Amino acid sequence: MTTATKSAHFRSLHTPARPLALANAWDVATARVVEAAGAPAVATTSAGTAWSLGAPDGDRVSRDLVLGVLARVAAAVTVPVTADIEGGYGRTPAEVADTVARVLDAGVVGVNIEDGARPPRVLADRVVAARGAAGRAGIDLFVNARVDTYLLGLGDPATRLRDTLARARGYVDAGADGIFVPGLTDPGVIKELAAGLTVPLNVMAGPGMPRVHELGALGVARVSLGSGVAQAAHAAVRRAARELHRTGGYDSLRPALDHGELDGLFT
Amino acid sequence: MTTATKSAHFRSLHTPARPLALANAWDVATARVVEAAGAPAVATTSAGTAWSLGAPDGDRVSRDLVLGVLARVAAAVTVPVTADIEGGYGRTPAEVADTVARVLDAGVVGVNIEDGARPPRVLADRVVAARGAAGRAGIDLFVNARVDTYLLGLGDPATRLRDTLARARGYVDAGADGIFVPGLTDPGVIKELAAGLTVPLNVMAGPGMPRVHELGALGVARVSLGSGVAQAAHAAVRRAARELHRTGGYDSLRPALDHGELDGLFT
Repeated sequence: MTTATKSAHFRSLHTPARPLALANAWDVATARVVEAAGAPAVATTSAGTAWSLGAPDGDRVSRDLVLGVLARVAAAVTVPVTADIEGGYGRTPAEVADTVARVLDAGVVGVNIEDGARPPRVLADRVVAARGAAGRAGIDLFVNARVDTYLLGLGDPATRLRDTLARARGYVDAGADGIFVPGLTDPGVIKELAAGLTVPLNVMAGPGMPRVHELGALGVARVSLGSGVAQAAHAAVRRAARELHRTGGYDSLRPALDHGELDGLFT
Repeated sequence: MTTATKSAHFRSLHTPARPLALANAWDVATARVVEAAGAPAVATTSAGTAWSLGAPDGDRVSRDLVLGVLARVAAAVTVPVTADIEGGYGRTPAEVADTVARVLDAGVVGVNIEDGARPPRVLADRVVAARGAAGRAGIDLFVNARVDTYLLGLGDPATRLRDTLARARGYVDAGADGIFVPGLTDPGVIKELAAGLTVPLNVMAGPGMPRVHELGALGVARVSLGSGVAQAAHAAVRRAARELHRTGGYDSLRPALDHGELDGLFT
């Protein structure tokens, strides 16, 4: 698949009729396992990637190391890859543009960029910068702007939905192709947000949340698991290590993915 | 802890009275999770590391990428780190010596080097090379020589135990500090091997194998899980991805390690 075909295909996957469901990966192994499980696209989790590289979540990891991971992941899978790049790994729009240019060089066709606790103007400028970098590269990048009002509990709860929509519209005006609002759980809020947007809405899901098709019925076009898969994998690691050190046993190594099957993902 | 203290401590952990039990890690996240679970040392799995970087097991991964992982792991944990370096990531003893010098620079105090399907003379020469590199660096490196007769089913089964002991003694003569024989399951064979060696015996364990203290009673001084932990973690990834794509649900994201707890491992 050419980059243009991948970009167009990735864009077309965003539909409430059958929401794009993403089990986020953080290295080549997890990307290939997810792809082999039937994923139509691979999305990275920035938290999982940062942890794997030895940094906490939240723009603390080395950009070069993340770019290395993205290049290896994009080279290893055939489906489109979208990258969570936190705040864009830069202080200025020019630095974020540089990040995006390098992410595109790595073979990625989508990015998530988040506002976090920063003023919305900052992310709007970064979306403009990302869009500009994609234009210069001639790539139809899908820019997913993440609004952290719900995740971080920002502002007055009474006006949070209105504030979120205002932020989202600002990001769309700046050139965002989609809006990602993690931290949503209330179906009524999800439905109102989706109805208030002209672009695909992405929500984060996990245990207790409506299923993918139910979220689609509320208007959601994309569902991602964030760092949830990494957290489950690391729970398996901890369980095995604790059993080994507490009882000297190995029962928690089951279930396991076969060594030969894993090896076969890379040959 | 200084490197000298770490080396001496790591060496002292090899005892059948309380075998060194290693739940092998493959990146900083898994190393920190394993350390937090009470591990006295962190050992890497070469297969898990290779998969994470996009290569199959068996000397196919980029040495530079592996060295980057090792340096980040050794910088992130306080316990001693021992690295599985497959055949030594080089064709000649000089290249293996260069690998070992760089592994030592990364802050590692132990290595596994394997013979695989190569003639025993090759690994003996590589052990000499590794020992020389450690001497030049002034580091008391623990060289664990891996004998693959049982893992790969090499030679005549009737003489395999004798062949394994002969190989092991050759590696000890070349300067190995310990012998690793993966693929053993028969307690009688394990006991005979341990009795026939003057250095610590390391076996690989997993479901169905005697527990760590039972292996200690057979004379084993070190027990490692190889790629078993990685295989269990990737099974968790596959389970989550399959559930998402088949049913649109997220139940298999439980149990999970808490996001804040994971983040706390890196701050």
